[in-house]
Amino acid sequence: MAGESTQVDLSVKAIGWGAKDASGILHPIKFSRRTPGERDVKIRVLYCGVCNFDMEMVRNKWGFTRYPYVFGHETAGEVVEVGSKVQKFKVGDKVAVGCMVGSCGKCYNCENGMENYCPEPNMADGSVYREQGERSYGGCSNVMVVDEKFVLRWPENLPQDTGVPLLCAGVVVYSPMKYMGLDKPGKHIGVFGLGGLGSVAVKFIKAFGGKATVISTSRRKEKEAIEEHGADAFVVNSDTEQLQALAGTMDGVVDTTPGGRTPMSLMLNLLKFDGSLILVGAPETLFELPVQPLILGRRKIIGSSTGGLKEYQEMLDFAAKHNILCDTEVIGIDYLSTAMERIKNLDVKYRFAIDIGNTLKYEE
Amino acid sequence: MAGESTQVDLSVKAIGWGAKDASGILHPIKFSRRTPGERDVKIRVLYCGVCNFDMEMVRNKWGFTRYPYVFGHETAGEVVEVGSKVQKFKVGDKVAVGCMVGSCGKCYNCENGMENYCPEPNMADGSVYREQGERSYGGCSNVMVVDEKFVLRWPENLPQDTGVPLLCAGVVVYSPMKYMGLDKPGKHIGVFGLGGLGSVAVKFIKAFGGKATVISTSRRKEKEAIEEHGADAFVVNSDTEQLQALAGTMDGVVDTTPGGRTPMSLMLNLLKFDGSLILVGAPETLFELPVQPLILGRRKIIGSSTGGLKEYQEMLDFAAKHNILCDTEVIGIDYLSTAMERIKNLDVKYRFAIDIGNTLKYEE
Repeated sequence: MAGESTQVDLSVKAIGWGAKDASGILHPIKFSRRTPGERDVKIRVLYCGVCNFDMEMVRNKWGFTRYPYVFGHETAGEVVEVGSKVQKFKVGDKVAVGCMVGSCGKCYNCENGMENYCPEPNMADGSVYREQGERSYGGCSNVMVVDEKFVLRWPENLPQDTGVPLLCAGVVVYSPMKYMGLDKPGKHIGVFGLGGLGSVAVKFIKAFGGKATVISTSRRKEKEAIEEHGADAFVVNSDTEQLQALAGTMDGVVDTTPGGRTPMSLMLNLLKFDGSLILVGAPETLFELPVQPLILGRRKIIGSSTGGLKEYQEMLDFAAKHNILCDTEVIGIDYLSTAMERIKNLDVKYRFAIDIGNTLKYEE
Repeated sequence: MAGESTQVDLSVKAIGWGAKDASGILHPIKFSRRTPGERDVKIRVLYCGVCNFDMEMVRNKWGFTRYPYVFGHETAGEVVEVGSKVQKFKVGDKVAVGCMVGSCGKCYNCENGMENYCPEPNMADGSVYREQGERSYGGCSNVMVVDEKFVLRWPENLPQDTGVPLLCAGVVVYSPMKYMGLDKPGKHIGVFGLGGLGSVAVKFIKAFGGKATVISTSRRKEKEAIEEHGADAFVVNSDTEQLQALAGTMDGVVDTTPGGRTPMSLMLNLLKFDGSLILVGAPETLFELPVQPLILGRRKIIGSSTGGLKEYQEMLDFAAKHNILCDTEVIGIDYLSTAMERIKNLDVKYRFAIDIGNTLKYEE
């Protein structure tokens, strides 16, 4: 077992899946979580989403993976135990945990519902943490122990298996669209990329009452963009003529492609005066930024990373109300290595969720 | 005489200074302006500012200069005649004209006080225009005829000679700081570059009740930044240690250096969460944009170009109230070629204004 400490009582035996080093090989990993405190909720994990971020973390792409690493930042399950002072939850409640399990609680961002921008965060998968004497492990495990503040209510009518990817893909696009005022009816929003994030973005835009245009590298995605997700229009990003016809028509553009892959001039050109380009893709390379389209149209570029707890909850409730789910392939834990390979090869439509409840159990 | 038309009655004989071709050589140029219509104001020009933009336009840097070209987009004078339906002005009033003399009047931007972003503008210097049968010529001339909508009231206690550069340098920095909410007390704003725009930006920030930090390539500007303009702090942009100490402390950064000259990562690094980087410098090269500082701090980049008529007037009134002027060297028209050379060599602190009233007269 890894990560024990003498400072915190770690009595909850857990098993997860993750990596012991940067080789990319996935294993079962046994570890301990803290004994639930008075404000903690103990959760039996039922589903855990897998996303590209996890795959990169497993391989230490950004240099801050801590091994042994148990991934998982999209987790849903049910409450099996609550601390004496827990107010929001009771045993049997359906709940979820997103990418955060802690933050400083004192900074401007924490005090204003933007815990995701706290400078001292505690990420669910332990990639960044602040606690002394205990590290966190991700939700791809049989059990979690989390401060109730960081536990989300799972809406009754939302399935957990195909809903669990919303905890990353959903909030990542919902939060900045809301922040930039793009959640109003009648807004025309361009979505670059039709993967997990892009397909969910289209569904939110339609539920907001807006018009969604998908711009993709691949012509073969047209049918699914329009018929399956409800996009109003589809353009291949090499079709310069059609893109030029759309110049200046969009209130917002959401770039879900990896940062730097889509030329910025192409995206800025689609925006109306005062329009916003939202970047959410993890950076791969530098963008080349032309200044003129910004200056001549008072356009904005904004970056955004996940959402705060209030936004997370709001997003889940909104998704439940409007029946927004992610196209998800539900797998057993034994299929994980294959799933990670398929993510790498872009061979997934659009997300995987692991059926933890039925396929991963702790055994002595 | 140039630019006559049979469609519009052009009876006002005028003389200005400008260029007949892209050689950069400046001459007096005789031309005609329209006979004042019922909503027009005829203005005797007293002062006209000279800025880097004029010098570039004379040489057709951006390819849209129309020759013969009479420059001038910072013009102040007094009313000598008003049309029968003019309501805002009477003969003898002190007035000014900025960079616009017309716009479509019907688009969203025109209807919301942002005529500067009208897609069919009529620039004072004729670089971009919409009227049929008449073209405009800039304010470096003895007389202007302008629709009263585009004429600004000149505040009583503001000198016209050292105030006239505010019509470009002032509004360019005032408008975006206001738009991004940086005009509130207590905001910490970084100003890159201490030329005409930067020095005026510092004065506005101080009048807003904020803290101004100047970042310049030149150590020798420290004394003037602090003692003459009232900046709170000064940093040389090669002093990486001091810049790192300022990381995450600023609500806004105004980049007045030519677009692309200052590394974006350097500017973004100074911003707090939710902070705004404002670009107002004419683009020279592409910026290289790192995505991470945007995404991890929900930071914004915004471009801005001059201001609308309402903002222009507000800026002038605010400057008068707070005694904000531009450091200006007042010259006679005969000194113009030398002044342009000095602008090119960055040998001006910080703006030139031509005493048109005393040095440029129309003679048959």
